[in-house]
Amino acid sequence: MINQKTVAVFGLGSMGYGIARSVLRAGHRTYGFDVMDEPMERLADEGSLRGQPELVAEELDAAVIAVLNASQTEMVLFGDGGIVPKLRAGAVVIACATVAPDFARSIATRCAEFDVHYLDAPMSGGSIKAAEGQLTFMASGSHSAFVAARPVFDAAAERVFELGNEPGAGSAMKAVNQMLAGVHIAAMAEALTFGLTQGVSPAQFLEVISECAGTSWMLENRAPHIVSGDYTPHSKVDIWPKDLGIVLDIAKSARFAAPLTAAALQQFLAAAGSGLGGEDDAAVAKVYARNAGLDLPEIG
Amino acid sequence: MINQKTVAVFGLGSMGYGIARSVLRAGHRTYGFDVMDEPMERLADEGSLRGQPELVAEELDAAVIAVLNASQTEMVLFGDGGIVPKLRAGAVVIACATVAPDFARSIATRCAEFDVHYLDAPMSGGSIKAAEGQLTFMASGSHSAFVAARPVFDAAAERVFELGNEPGAGSAMKAVNQMLAGVHIAAMAEALTFGLTQGVSPAQFLEVISECAGTSWMLENRAPHIVSGDYTPHSKVDIWPKDLGIVLDIAKSARFAAPLTAAALQQFLAAAGSGLGGEDDAAVAKVYARNAGLDLPEIG
Repeated sequence: MINQKTVAVFGLGSMGYGIARSVLRAGHRTYGFDVMDEPMERLADEGSLRGQPELVAEELDAAVIAVLNASQTEMVLFGDGGIVPKLRAGAVVIACATVAPDFARSIATRCAEFDVHYLDAPMSGGSIKAAEGQLTFMASGSHSAFVAARPVFDAAAERVFELGNEPGAGSAMKAVNQMLAGVHIAAMAEALTFGLTQGVSPAQFLEVISECAGTSWMLENRAPHIVSGDYTPHSKVDIWPKDLGIVLDIAKSARFAAPLTAAALQQFLAAAGSGLGGEDDAAVAKVYARNAGLDLPEIG
Repeated sequence: MINQKTVAVFGLGSMGYGIARSVLRAGHRTYGFDVMDEPMERLADEGSLRGQPELVAEELDAAVIAVLNASQTEMVLFGDGGIVPKLRAGAVVIACATVAPDFARSIATRCAEFDVHYLDAPMSGGSIKAAEGQLTFMASGSHSAFVAARPVFDAAAERVFELGNEPGAGSAMKAVNQMLAGVHIAAMAEALTFGLTQGVSPAQFLEVISECAGTSWMLENRAPHIVSGDYTPHSKVDIWPKDLGIVLDIAKSARFAAPLTAAALQQFLAAAGSGLGGEDDAAVAKVYARNAGLDLPEIG
């Protein structure tokens, strides 16, 4: 293969696994690392290489960090056995977790001390898009970082928004997107269950509202889960106390009052607190239904 | 013209005027009534008939009630000089204001006492769609009411959702749609201004988020007003204290807790209370901007 690269993906959840598979499918030498053995074995069965992060780091052209949050990102990069000191000069770290812009800026500075490029590149699109290599990335960083990351994006991205050469801008846009995505899921749940009190069935809600001014991307994506009563997690309730928490931490630092986001967070906290954390995030509707004594559809 | 009907539109605001013009353009004998002279004169210049509601009522096949709320609807239909007692048997009242489902049911019953059909038919789509005859109606009522209303819908509607034969179902769906539309406008304003605190410009916000999971119909429709700094009202801030107030009254009657809707209403109240009531509803962003000491784009 011309221009074959060596890439490692850290974090093989639904997003990271999809990226790793896309990179592998594109013909690159691919490593996948996770705290769990199962996804690493599954990826190896598909053709990924086996190794230890600290031993293979020096081979890497790109390291994709698809873990859950800032502290896991820091651990992979600079923790015990962290890879950045072992990466060769000119390698790129593509950091995909939702983190605060300040965190992205500080980690980028620490990478630069090792002549390692850092791309602040949170992603959007969900597990299905990840599996198809059709993710959207909101990325910012130096021109060299973008060039080094190109083979990974060619394999895993449908679209890359290039948001300038300052790390932090990608994470800022991701925070804005997550604010809206979380609020829209809770709003969909609020409106769907409100409709139930007025005799509007969930199926009728989806059919009509998805064609009207009240629609949103999240409504069209998540309301079908409620209509079918299937809460198999594509994206879990537990994501939102974390992501809206990050958003509100950033907002608080900026002394920015975000009343809708705060209200949405409370609904996701109530969902997580009542045992729904592992279900699909559409299950926030169960909080509304329970509070109003309503019955949602059950799986057929 | 084959099947020419005689239609009156009550309330010639941006929505009613658009409907009246569409009905006129379709070749029907058309009356337009408003408390203001200006839109009546303008419509007459386009070819509408002149008359007094109580004198022409007996000619009408259909009366479209496109006023602001329930009390204005009741006044037109049953107030001093109200038309329903003068309508001929088989005429249809097409009631388009956002009202409580209970109100729709009670007015339908009163119309039936005069053998007048009642279609509970709130609309969605905004002033531009109204002008183009491309509105969406969420309608419920008897088969006869739908048949009698057909010529009006053929002229003014892009889409009619037929929500069953019980008046009230249309208004219930409209309330659900307004809940989401209002929450999404406020959420867009919250996220756009939050983005500003993190260095995301309104133009960049619109470009990126409209392509991501955080998008909504309202975001794509209203955020451009903020980007251009043009708050010429397509739909006014003042609509939302009214419509979200109706939604929350219905919710309260059903003992349904709607925290996001309540939070959105507070933001629109703050906008109206600070003198922005007559501006485009995207001006709710000015409340967020003021609270956080941010500057929004000004008209270029």
